[in-house]
Amino acid sequence: MEAMTFVLFGSTGDLAKRKIFPALYNLYLDQKLPSAISIIGLGRNQMSHQKFQHDVEQSIKTFSRRMDNDHSHLDTFLEAFRYSVLDATKADDYRNLLNLVREREMELNIPGNRMFYLSVGPDLFGPIALNIKESGLGSTNGWKRLIIEKPFGRDLESARELNATLTEAFEEDEIYRIDHYLGKSMIQNLGSLEFSNPVLQTLLNNRHIANVQITASETVGVEERAGYYDKSGAIRDMFQNHMLQILMMTAMHIPKSNSPYDIRNEKRKVIEAVRPIKKDEVSLEIIRGQYRAGEINGSSVVSYRKEPGVDASSQNDTFVAARLWIDNPYWQGVPFYIRTGKRMAKKSTRIVIEFKNSIKTGKSNRMDPNLLIIEINPNEKVSLQINSRNPINGKIEPVNISFSTQQSDIPEAYERLIQDALRGDSTFFAHWKEVEKSWEWVQPILDAFREELVPLYLYPAGSNGPEAANALLNKDGFKWWLDELQHALEHKKEFVAL
Amino acid sequence: MEAMTFVLFGSTGDLAKRKIFPALYNLYLDQKLPSAISIIGLGRNQMSHQKFQHDVEQSIKTFSRRMDNDHSHLDTFLEAFRYSVLDATKADDYRNLLNLVREREMELNIPGNRMFYLSVGPDLFGPIALNIKESGLGSTNGWKRLIIEKPFGRDLESARELNATLTEAFEEDEIYRIDHYLGKSMIQNLGSLEFSNPVLQTLLNNRHIANVQITASETVGVEERAGYYDKSGAIRDMFQNHMLQILMMTAMHIPKSNSPYDIRNEKRKVIEAVRPIKKDEVSLEIIRGQYRAGEINGSSVVSYRKEPGVDASSQNDTFVAARLWIDNPYWQGVPFYIRTGKRMAKKSTRIVIEFKNSIKTGKSNRMDPNLLIIEINPNEKVSLQINSRNPINGKIEPVNISFSTQQSDIPEAYERLIQDALRGDSTFFAHWKEVEKSWEWVQPILDAFREELVPLYLYPAGSNGPEAANALLNKDGFKWWLDELQHALEHKKEFVAL
Repeated sequence: MEAMTFVLFGSTGDLAKRKIFPALYNLYLDQKLPSAISIIGLGRNQMSHQKFQHDVEQSIKTFSRRMDNDHSHLDTFLEAFRYSVLDATKADDYRNLLNLVREREMELNIPGNRMFYLSVGPDLFGPIALNIKESGLGSTNGWKRLIIEKPFGRDLESARELNATLTEAFEEDEIYRIDHYLGKSMIQNLGSLEFSNPVLQTLLNNRHIANVQITASETVGVEERAGYYDKSGAIRDMFQNHMLQILMMTAMHIPKSNSPYDIRNEKRKVIEAVRPIKKDEVSLEIIRGQYRAGEINGSSVVSYRKEPGVDASSQNDTFVAARLWIDNPYWQGVPFYIRTGKRMAKKSTRIVIEFKNSIKTGKSNRMDPNLLIIEINPNEKVSLQINSRNPINGKIEPVNISFSTQQSDIPEAYERLIQDALRGDSTFFAHWKEVEKSWEWVQPILDAFREELVPLYLYPAGSNGPEAANALLNKDGFKWWLDELQHALEHKKEFVAL
Repeated sequence: MEAMTFVLFGSTGDLAKRKIFPALYNLYLDQKLPSAISIIGLGRNQMSHQKFQHDVEQSIKTFSRRMDNDHSHLDTFLEAFRYSVLDATKADDYRNLLNLVREREMELNIPGNRMFYLSVGPDLFGPIALNIKESGLGSTNGWKRLIIEKPFGRDLESARELNATLTEAFEEDEIYRIDHYLGKSMIQNLGSLEFSNPVLQTLLNNRHIANVQITASETVGVEERAGYYDKSGAIRDMFQNHMLQILMMTAMHIPKSNSPYDIRNEKRKVIEAVRPIKKDEVSLEIIRGQYRAGEINGSSVVSYRKEPGVDASSQNDTFVAARLWIDNPYWQGVPFYIRTGKRMAKKSTRIVIEFKNSIKTGKSNRMDPNLLIIEINPNEKVSLQINSRNPINGKIEPVNISFSTQQSDIPEAYERLIQDALRGDSTFFAHWKEVEKSWEWVQPILDAFREELVPLYLYPAGSNGPEAANALLNKDGFKWWLDELQHALEHKKEFVAL
């Protein structure tokens, strides 16, 4: 790997402490960093290099998945770190930064390869990118790259504006948009599963599949992010990015090659083939929900509107379910059901592929369909639900055949993604075209929500979302699989109460 | 279930003690016996009813899978048992038996439903059947049934003769031919797996399958059966019956209904579609082997020819491997490889279905094919081998997704089969046409073996059989899957030696 400078904007923030420093350290231990690297942290407050190195050390000791290991290598690793104060809008500060970057490049004999990681609020993406350009930080003999993370705008127009600004300073292929769901190992496995298994290639198309269900449910509520969340909702916070990215990864056809270009090209074809939805049809295809008071794991929780920082009459969505159609030869006629929500019955990110049930049996002994279940979080697991004869009573019953990846020592999403960015591999980053097409698809939904053309269903915290989200599937003759049953929950509650 | 008389010929033998009495007792505990049943044991030596009941009690306490349970019901159960002395060739003894049967029928108010279980040597099948007829035992207002177990003849001609004799006394649908492999729960599951799983229906045909491998390997040698075995060999002892029955169960098409007629009809279509083999082609398709001295689980074992009771120059087969073709639209072009042997590396009865590997990759990273693995014995397990991305290093690697049936409390093969016979369900018994067609297919092999047209390969005890059995697949571009590797065995040996 080429020697480089890694410039981290927002180096005193939470993401840096919890994810970025530990990820860099783990990469270092695995010898996945360049032999010469200069890491420069930036923040608004004055700080000495020593204090910064100390803070990095603390964050690694607290958050690294290898915190049990001995830290004999930590001192050498920390020597790579320097700090510079920076107000993102002050040109002078960028000149100081440039001086420090150059000084360290000379000291460490590093060519002008510069990675800029913007771990800051989205309003600063544009100003920082332009200042990188204008200060000369972006003018280098080597390469330059920019890492940013959602949100990329809050609607189609603002996303396009942001991208126009960024591309004044960076080419598209220099921009690495992190969607951390793309860093999850099971998401990265999706393409491999189809590519490397002839039996799945045979089965994964509209001749054999009845529907596809993608769920990302959380048990947490809005937590400390009410200010941001109440203006964004599940549709912007989860659906436009993570959920549509999972859709693309699930439905993409086998690429011609393993190259980032071919893979992202196939993803883009998926989002381009998703049938557009008109504003006045949104209420037929999209379910909007908001949690009311309820109970999770035996504890009472307040309604969304009573969360600190949330408007008491908020119409914001904490739950979205959608039915989508992909109009291409592989998926024509197969509904994709997608939902995401907060304060739901269980934490689970999963894909359930339901196969067509062509078996004719009497009504009384109707058999369960075959299911391919891909669990992404909190467990990583691939299962196939098949029917088998119970050896005791001879009845045909569904059983699950599955494998789980070993859970220990798997690199975290940020570790994978940062490593890929350092290597210049953009496979698992969102291309602008994917982002733009996703916003295009979502825009009528944003409009319909804003204009109150879609009912807001209240669902009890701890449930599987509003009943309307079940009806969305029921009208097609389907149901959500693997939902924790309400009566099971209630039973559990009773049990706890006894 | 109808009240009945159960007459057991050979009731002092090993099979009765180890399998039949425990099976009847377990069925009794599960309330799967008729409420009124008269069980009459027969043997060559005089014995009182009480002594017989005591012997039955001992065998149950020793061999029942429920021997840990309390035996409070045992006394009631034992009351059903009576004993009568019988020389199979003496007409008088049958008249005595008839008197006892009638006496008990009157006592217990049992209609003339009579089950005759012939747990005796095959030379007695004919004489007993004829005596049942001539004595009047078989003339009854109710039903009569005959249960027999292999061997059904030792070649096509003797099998036909035996059947001609049996059918003088019993109709085909009154004859229940036990092949205890058909009583194994995973074999009974084979049809259900395909019938109840659309994904398997899609995959299980020659468009998707490269080859099918059926293995039944034993680690034991000839044990105390040398006299019988040295005249029969693996071809008669295992191949003509169990292996071809597994073939039929594996390859049969979905029957029109669940009826014994439709299921056995589909099985017969399979054996009828197996491409006949000419005597002078046998050496191309069949590998004959005999074990020489070797080592199993760290212990030295003698060669077959040094086993007590075996001819020192025996040419008998202790291993047979075969390549078969099923000439029907589902299986045209798919080779079925079948092998069975004694003194092999591990005990395993399994079916491995190898899917076609259509994936184009560089030679260096050739991917393993998908495999559907059905383990029958000693474990019951269905696995699908798929390729998945290793989350640590990103490499595509084969993983197994599988389920095992719970091993405890599964009825034994004899329990299932006896219960089925009592109910008059012949689904999992061998029909004469299956037996006859199997002998027809095997006859040229018997002839070729006898005329020494086929090499006899010696293989070391503890191996996977002769190298020629590997070459049989290699020439088609395949290999046996899941064989214990020789070098792994040797390594293990070394490890033990250290």
